[in-house]
Amino acid sequence: MTLNTALDHAHIAELHARLRSRNPLVHNITNYVAMSLSANVLLAVGASPAMVHAAEEVEAFVSISDALVINIGTLSPGWVEGMRRAAAHAEALGKPWVLDPVGCGATPYRIAVAVELAALGPKVIRGNASEILCLSGASGAGGKGVDSTAGSDDAVHAAISLARRTRAVVVVTGATDYATDGARVIAIESGDPLMTQSTGLGCALSATTAAFSAIAPPLEAATAALAVYGAAGKLAATRCKGPGHLPAELCDALYRLDAGALALHTRISEYAAR
Amino acid sequence: MTLNTALDHAHIAELHARLRSRNPLVHNITNYVAMSLSANVLLAVGASPAMVHAAEEVEAFVSISDALVINIGTLSPGWVEGMRRAAAHAEALGKPWVLDPVGCGATPYRIAVAVELAALGPKVIRGNASEILCLSGASGAGGKGVDSTAGSDDAVHAAISLARRTRAVVVVTGATDYATDGARVIAIESGDPLMTQSTGLGCALSATTAAFSAIAPPLEAATAALAVYGAAGKLAATRCKGPGHLPAELCDALYRLDAGALALHTRISEYAAR
Amino acid sequence: MTLNTALDHAHIAELHARLRSRNPLVHNITNYVAMSLSANVLLAVGASPAMVHAAEEVEAFVSISDALVINIGTLSPGWVEGMRRAAAHAEALGKPWVLDPVGCGATPYRIAVAVELAALGPKVIRGNASEILCLSGASGAGGKGVDSTAGSDDAVHAAISLARRTRAVVVVTGATDYATDGARVIAIESGDPLMTQSTGLGCALSATTAAFSAIAPPLEAATAALAVYGAAGKLAATRCKGPGHLPAELCDALYRLDAGALALHTRISEYAAR
Repeated sequence: MTLNTALDHAHIAELHARLRSRNPLVHNITNYVAMSLSANVLLAVGASPAMVHAAEEVEAFVSISDALVINIGTLSPGWVEGMRRAAAHAEALGKPWVLDPVGCGATPYRIAVAVELAALGPKVIRGNASEILCLSGASGAGGKGVDSTAGSDDAVHAAISLARRTRAVVVVTGATDYATDGARVIAIESGDPLMTQSTGLGCALSATTAAFSAIAPPLEAATAALAVYGAAGKLAATRCKGPGHLPAELCDALYRLDAGALALHTRISEYAAR
Repeated sequence: MTLNTALDHAHIAELHARLRSRNPLVHNITNYVAMSLSANVLLAVGASPAMVHAAEEVEAFVSISDALVINIGTLSPGWVEGMRRAAAHAEALGKPWVLDPVGCGATPYRIAVAVELAALGPKVIRGNASEILCLSGASGAGGKGVDSTAGSDDAVHAAISLARRTRAVVVVTGATDYATDGARVIAIESGDPLMTQSTGLGCALSATTAAFSAIAPPLEAATAALAVYGAAGKLAATRCKGPGHLPAELCDALYRLDAGALALHTRISEYAAR
Repeated sequence: MTLNTALDHAHIAELHARLRSRNPLVHNITNYVAMSLSANVLLAVGASPAMVHAAEEVEAFVSISDALVINIGTLSPGWVEGMRRAAAHAEALGKPWVLDPVGCGATPYRIAVAVELAALGPKVIRGNASEILCLSGASGAGGKGVDSTAGSDDAVHAAISLARRTRAVVVVTGATDYATDGARVIAIESGDPLMTQSTGLGCALSATTAAFSAIAPPLEAATAALAVYGAAGKLAATRCKGPGHLPAELCDALYRLDAGALALHTRISEYAAR
């Protein structure tokens, strides 16, 4: 059953204005591939990014940050130690953090790290369908490397179950994006298939989600990030003749996005979770 | 003596179509500088990229991948351990892997690692002239950092000798690109000098070679990668007023490349190795 | 009091021509976020970049390089060991090196490393106002992650004091850029506010400063780098409708920069330090 939602375009535009005005400091522990794009996306959306991963300083950096994103894309034991400490310190200080379990399902090591981090209190977990299915325990493994082999529709139930177990808002992205806190399910239609042909766009969305979580509660933050990012992505894709310029066009579109474009390029609906 | 070759444009276009339809998963252990470009190039050419380097999970990831590329551009001992394990496991499973000995010749450490990896059974080794001269033992050191100080023509004999010793196909890139299995030498004229002014393009070519090696034997794979990449690079360069937009234009050109453009922008000839 | 300076546009254009003709090899130990951009900027300005960080090979690489840049943006203990060895070896060989104390002030670990490296003899130290204020001891901490919370004008005295203590030329960038050797202060007006909205542009400027320090004394090198980079940045910004394409446009502008554009887009003045 479709319900009306308070998370409408006007409210999301307001949240984006708040983000731009507060310019939150977002602490990124992310993979090598997506670092530069994540930083540029965060700047374009209105946040202040920093990449800090060493166990020697993550706690001090969490203390001065407004939100944290942990992304396991190119993990290794030294980095995982930094992730653990950062997550625990964010939890201790009540600062919101977002988990991106990249490639969860691809290897046992990756699954173990994702499961461990998911238990440390992320406010939002964002992944593709294969990652969320794996992390929720609905499948032992899956995906094709870091790409999903399932559609987002197939992972909604897994997302709801993961949200209930972890008390995180769970976001599963795909042709339609879903965000759920275990009770409500928000569906966002936006974006463009070309976005799957450029690396790190999912990672940069997780960073954007962290930025919004600095200025709004998790479900609102996740929904706003999906809508803003999706609208900008859709606009950017129309200006591209291939995936090459998509990251640059995405940043420009985020930088210039206004309420009109946001409303025009996203469809938001809400369901009650069953 | 120039021979006719079966590796003509029509066959290469067919291999590219096969690559796009199979969408092989390419496991990258590569340098920090070229990671993002390599991933985007692999997506644009029709493969599915993943970057996974930790010793804790490389073997598991090799198991699910279709091909592997190992690039020593920003090596360190922890990474080299991951490279060793990945190479050995790929060899054990009979999966093709490509070695890019970046900067071989610049330091003793780098030479030692490149020599060690070259002995672990790569199906293709791709480098610039200085790197191939060094790795073949024709010169103890050379190059200017990661750039070549020799022309590719000067390294053909070294490439043949290295191919015979390692049983790998050896590719040496430059104004003309060469691929040899120690018996045949394929020469490809394509690309554009502007490609030397943008970082990581050689590294992304090695990744592309790994993608083709997932769907064709090594010499065919190397030749197809050189032709497809070179044609796209040539097209991309004509759309640039400097090196700045070259990576994005290259990805667009790879994404849209068709058999006509491939034939128009590459010249392929074959010699018998002496 | 404003003085005439020998560091005029004609001299800087001459230095840039010298840089392009000598094509110095610049050794980068820099952060993950800015690596690719730094390499592309160095290529565009006329240098030959390489990224080499492992303690096992930094000394050998310093030996073949013309200049070094050390940037602590994404530091960790293993990398700091490479930085120490590289800096000490550069000092021993009399090769110029540039320190970029990214985020100095954000965490105690970062401050300690920046202070240690600053004592190892850099020829130039470049930072934003918060970083220079922190490193000079004028403030215990400051900044917002890796961004400055102070204007460059407020850090000129700190820069002079830091220059006198370390015998390095100190550069503080912002709306107006300053370079000082403790006796003279050069002010450069150039660049564009959009440059703060794209990641790694300060880091790539430090790399550019290292390139110029390979072919000119520190104060000249720092001034030339600021002027050339600022002019190109200003040109690039006029071609952008947002920050997305700025890095690519900056590289194109650097690649094509001529003496006329340099003169048109920079204002250089000199003061005696008090």
